Amino acid sequence: MTHFLLSSVPISGAFKFRGACNAVFSLNQEDASKGVVTHSSGNHAAALALAAKLRGIPSYIVVPKNAPTCKIENVKRYGGQIVWSEASVQSREEVANKVWQETGAIFIHPYNDGRILSGQGTISLEILEQAPQIDTLVVPISGGGLISGIALAAKSINPAIRIFAAEPKGADDAAQSKAAGRIIRLSETNTIADGLRAFLGDFTWPVVRDLVEDIITVEDSEIIKAMKLCFEILKVVVEPSGAIGLAAVLSDTFQKNPAWKDCNHIGIVVSGGNVDMAMLWDSFNKGK
Amino acid sequence: MTHFLLSSVPISGAFKFRGACNAVFSLNQEDASKGVVTHSSGNHAAALALAAKLRGIPSYIVVPKNAPTCKIENVKRYGGQIVWSEASVQSREEVANKVWQETGAIFIHPYNDGRILSGQGTISLEILEQAPQIDTLVVPISGGGLISGIALAAKSINPAIRIFAAEPKGADDAAQSKAAGRIIRLSETNTIADGLRAFLGDFTWPVVRDLVEDIITVEDSEIIKAMKLCFEILKVVVEPSGAIGLAAVLSDTFQKNPAWKDCNHIGIVVSGGNVDMAMLWDSFNKGK
Repeated sequence: MTHFLLSSVPISGAFKFRGACNAVFSLNQEDASKGVVTHSSGNHAAALALAAKLRGIPSYIVVPKNAPTCKIENVKRYGGQIVWSEASVQSREEVANKVWQETGAIFIHPYNDGRILSGQGTISLEILEQAPQIDTLVVPISGGGLISGIALAAKSINPAIRIFAAEPKGADDAAQSKAAGRIIRLSETNTIADGLRAFLGDFTWPVVRDLVEDIITVEDSEIIKAMKLCFEILKVVVEPSGAIGLAAVLSDTFQKNPAWKDCNHIGIVVSGGNVDMAMLWDSFNKGK
Repeated sequence: MTHFLLSSVPISGAFKFRGACNAVFSLNQEDASKGVVTHSSGNHAAALALAAKLRGIPSYIVVPKNAPTCKIENVKRYGGQIVWSEASVQSREEVANKVWQETGAIFIHPYNDGRILSGQGTISLEILEQAPQIDTLVVPISGGGLISGIALAAKSINPAIRIFAAEPKGADDAAQSKAAGRIIRLSETNTIADGLRAFLGDFTWPVVRDLVEDIITVEDSEIIKAMKLCFEILKVVVEPSGAIGLAAVLSDTFQKNPAWKDCNHIGIVVSGGNVDMAMLWDSFNKGK
């Protein structure tokens, strides 16, 4: 039996608010007064802007030029100051570094940060409180912040729980890293799941290596089908990066693997609803 | 403060399952064995088909030819036998009557039925259990089954609670009836809210007359804006008929009426997510 646990928060529209809020409110007053800075393809950006706004401090958000419009709108809605970068991870990091030098704002990495992990880990607490019978969790993977937090918290409650990652084939650095036994960074990525284009960090990699049983990779077409299912049956708006866990569970890779036959109670983390209507419509038509 | 209470059930995709389930499981074995029949523009149809399937009896669903595709698909999904009619209420009633004569199936009216009202009334129980501070409920109105059930149940818990109906301007028979003090049926209706084209029945009218404080009518453009807000901010897929309560609360009619200034804790019933993606896209573009 598969459980659909919707762990998204309407405010900011994704799980990222959990980590961002924990990070911002962990700062001492002196550090906080300088504000916070980050680079993000979108949901962490809006989440950090909102967390900073709630604490009454400035936030500087480095946003790649190819980020979805609705995610940029979210940053603006929450009062974040946008600083543009190129799409590459390198450019994002350089621009964020420059902002830090100029303002002294505290850098809050979107995932490679213990405070972020702890925040995301609260998802496990809620899942296992609501459905303690769950024996398997399937979680999207990008930089690894979400799944690391979830794995650490879930395993501390139930060491036998099985954790699987869901990753797009067009950005499968985690699957490659797992196979190679070391962090692999890709020279380029190509997937509809704009929130899953980041690479594992040195903080998240050991958790993924040791606590995540396997990485299930899926095609973009499978992600679109899962998005459509969420829309039509669950009546929930989910962005590609949020629907990938469902896509993974529905895939032959997962369904036909004899080693996973005894995954009886599967919790899927479905989070992130920041999808442009135009993009959704376009992808649904492609998915036909 | 406005509370968004999402009272939709993912199974069948609308509140209608509550009433349909109550009606089908209230039948004695002899009556049930002949099956059930109804006419409906959509959500009651799917709900009755599902309820009948769960009890293991046949269902005959009279569906107007202009019903949205996704609603027809839902009826088929749950094993309902579709019988086509013209779009008019008269044609629907005639065809349903014919099915009853041929099969002996018990007619379950989509709203003019005490068993249906009782089922829909369970929404009030849930709302007031989750948020007892609510002093105002805003509920879509069509045939009046939903709002009658909700009003009767809510007033039995809190006699001071205020009940408002939300109705499309292009199908404002309830507003006209309320003004005239008797049931008014329109010769035609014109609204995007396909679930709100029915007219009050003799069973629901007295409840609407006596327990509903006022009918707030809104334009289709306001409904579309509310749908968009649900989609973009709440991340919930809502059909026009489901979003109308939110549209009513956001309207100047409601916001600027001094008599309603003391509605402090407003519960909006948002139910019905059976919207074709193509229709949603189309209406969002129109709403720009």
